[in-house]
Amino acid sequence: MGVVLNLDGKRAAASVASLVELTAAEMARVNELILSKAGSDVDLIPELAKHLIDSGGKRLRPMVTLAAAQMFGYSGEGHVKLATSVEFMHTATLLHDDVVDESDLRRGRKTARMIWGNQASVLVGDFLLGQAFRMMVDVGSLEALDILSGAACVIAEGEVMQLGVAKNLETTEDDYLAVIKAKTAALFSAAAEVGPVIAEASRNDRAALRSYGTNLGLAFQLVDDALDYGGKSSDLGKNVGDDFREGKVTLPVILAYRRGSAEERAFWTSAIEDAQCDDAALERAIGLMNKHGAIGDTIGRARHFGEIARDALAPLRQTPQKDALLDVIDFCISRVS
Amino acid sequence: MGVVLNLDGKRAAASVASLVELTAAEMARVNELILSKAGSDVDLIPELAKHLIDSGGKRLRPMVTLAAAQMFGYSGEGHVKLATSVEFMHTATLLHDDVVDESDLRRGRKTARMIWGNQASVLVGDFLLGQAFRMMVDVGSLEALDILSGAACVIAEGEVMQLGVAKNLETTEDDYLAVIKAKTAALFSAAAEVGPVIAEASRNDRAALRSYGTNLGLAFQLVDDALDYGGKSSDLGKNVGDDFREGKVTLPVILAYRRGSAEERAFWTSAIEDAQCDDAALERAIGLMNKHGAIGDTIGRARHFGEIARDALAPLRQTPQKDALLDVIDFCISRVS
Repeated sequence: MGVVLNLDGKRAAASVASLVELTAAEMARVNELILSKAGSDVDLIPELAKHLIDSGGKRLRPMVTLAAAQMFGYSGEGHVKLATSVEFMHTATLLHDDVVDESDLRRGRKTARMIWGNQASVLVGDFLLGQAFRMMVDVGSLEALDILSGAACVIAEGEVMQLGVAKNLETTEDDYLAVIKAKTAALFSAAAEVGPVIAEASRNDRAALRSYGTNLGLAFQLVDDALDYGGKSSDLGKNVGDDFREGKVTLPVILAYRRGSAEERAFWTSAIEDAQCDDAALERAIGLMNKHGAIGDTIGRARHFGEIARDALAPLRQTPQKDALLDVIDFCISRVS
Repeated sequence: MGVVLNLDGKRAAASVASLVELTAAEMARVNELILSKAGSDVDLIPELAKHLIDSGGKRLRPMVTLAAAQMFGYSGEGHVKLATSVEFMHTATLLHDDVVDESDLRRGRKTARMIWGNQASVLVGDFLLGQAFRMMVDVGSLEALDILSGAACVIAEGEVMQLGVAKNLETTEDDYLAVIKAKTAALFSAAAEVGPVIAEASRNDRAALRSYGTNLGLAFQLVDDALDYGGKSSDLGKNVGDDFREGKVTLPVILAYRRGSAEERAFWTSAIEDAQCDDAALERAIGLMNKHGAIGDTIGRARHFGEIARDALAPLRQTPQKDALLDVIDFCISRVS
């Protein structure tokens, strides 16, 4: 039961096109704000920040914030600042994550900690988080502040939870979902919800966007987990098997382990817990995943959350923004298909 | 030119007595809030937080916030939350600092990173920072949020600046003051200023408390630097010479180096830059500091900032809170004298 990967990339890129187009003018302002707020008289800060900014992330989260605000007729300037705050929170998390995970590469480039050291990565992360909060305060919406500061806590809790499941093959699917809900989905959820909040939309509209964000985030992470066992390096900016070599227990591993024979479980134990994870082991891991449908079912789970995200938006009236946000779900899933 | 240290401790403790007494009832609520907000279903978080909470810091910063709010007749509950936020910001900074400095001990106890690892220290720091912001949002004062989020940025900038001066003996006194102003004084300043802010006191009153906090923080840090070359372990919870062994360039080192002969400078270079910092080297370092009056003059600089802090409060009418805050200045300086 192999998985056919969409390695072309064009189709996937096409399906965020309308989101990119709708938010292009405001994203230009987000990018300016990113550069100006990452500025500091302390040279190391803008240097390190520029490295991250140039690293070519898709900036999906701030685009979601912008589109979600537009959707409810928001006409002020606050959404640009909130979108920038969301991106800074994401960047700060990446910086701290790379330190925690001891990662060498991110999106095919050396991580900041490999160039400037763990110390600078921790501290510049703190600085960017501080700047994110300052921008939110500047916008002046206590509700948006509440949502985003809540997300900051939940993300940190998720990361701590992840330390607990690290290298633990007995992690259940539920445990793992709780981790990624906190670690990844909480920021997507907050990014989406602050749109209707700043536009003073109804409680129902807020709840719809919050639910959309949460489920989009879950789908996004699960697809990412699947891609780690079947993408190619140039698409991903990371190499196939990075999670495996780091001994990360992600859903494909959890499913293959739980469905495996005693002998197969012994293999997983040696690979994940005892770091026997050379290329031959990776090949065997992918073989076992395919045997047990672990990658396909991980994508199936992602599709499930994608459908919930779609239904969350269903009651909202049709707008170009709504269509674009629905396309993002397809974009995420279509990275593997 | 030796320095007489007050190793008794009783006199020093006595001069925070009135601050402790004035804020006792509210500090009990701060302590409850600390415990409840450090709670999480993720066990590691309250465990690690409890370690820090039990580590017996004086909680000077939250007491300053409480007294500064009382001083202007504040009668609500917000100051308890702001004081707790200030303490959480401080705790988060300590956690990240210990990772950055690779410290083994803090106040005579193993640092969290030695028990739970760097990863947990980074992430629990992020969690506590997130909780600090949530509490501030809960209070609902955008001005207080502005001050405290601004301080969060400045503190992180200060820490990054400190990386730049680390092991650099050519650091000037001005460079060093810029570092400690950001790293230490900014939080004291914010802690003091949010008192009058939440009490809706005048701009002048806010400015007075802000200035008091900044200068108290500078004095506090300089005394701490001096103590590192002349306290005893049981008083400090750190050992004499910890800064020296870590190659930290603090004001006593800066003064001794700048005033030293070529041969003495070569000693400092080998000690600080090349980590030749055994007990014999420490003894020589202290000898050179005494020869050049470096410790005494560091304390002199601290006294200078203490006087500015005192004058900052001078125009305010006499209240028990004002007296208590003035006593804190003496307390800081009297740790060495």
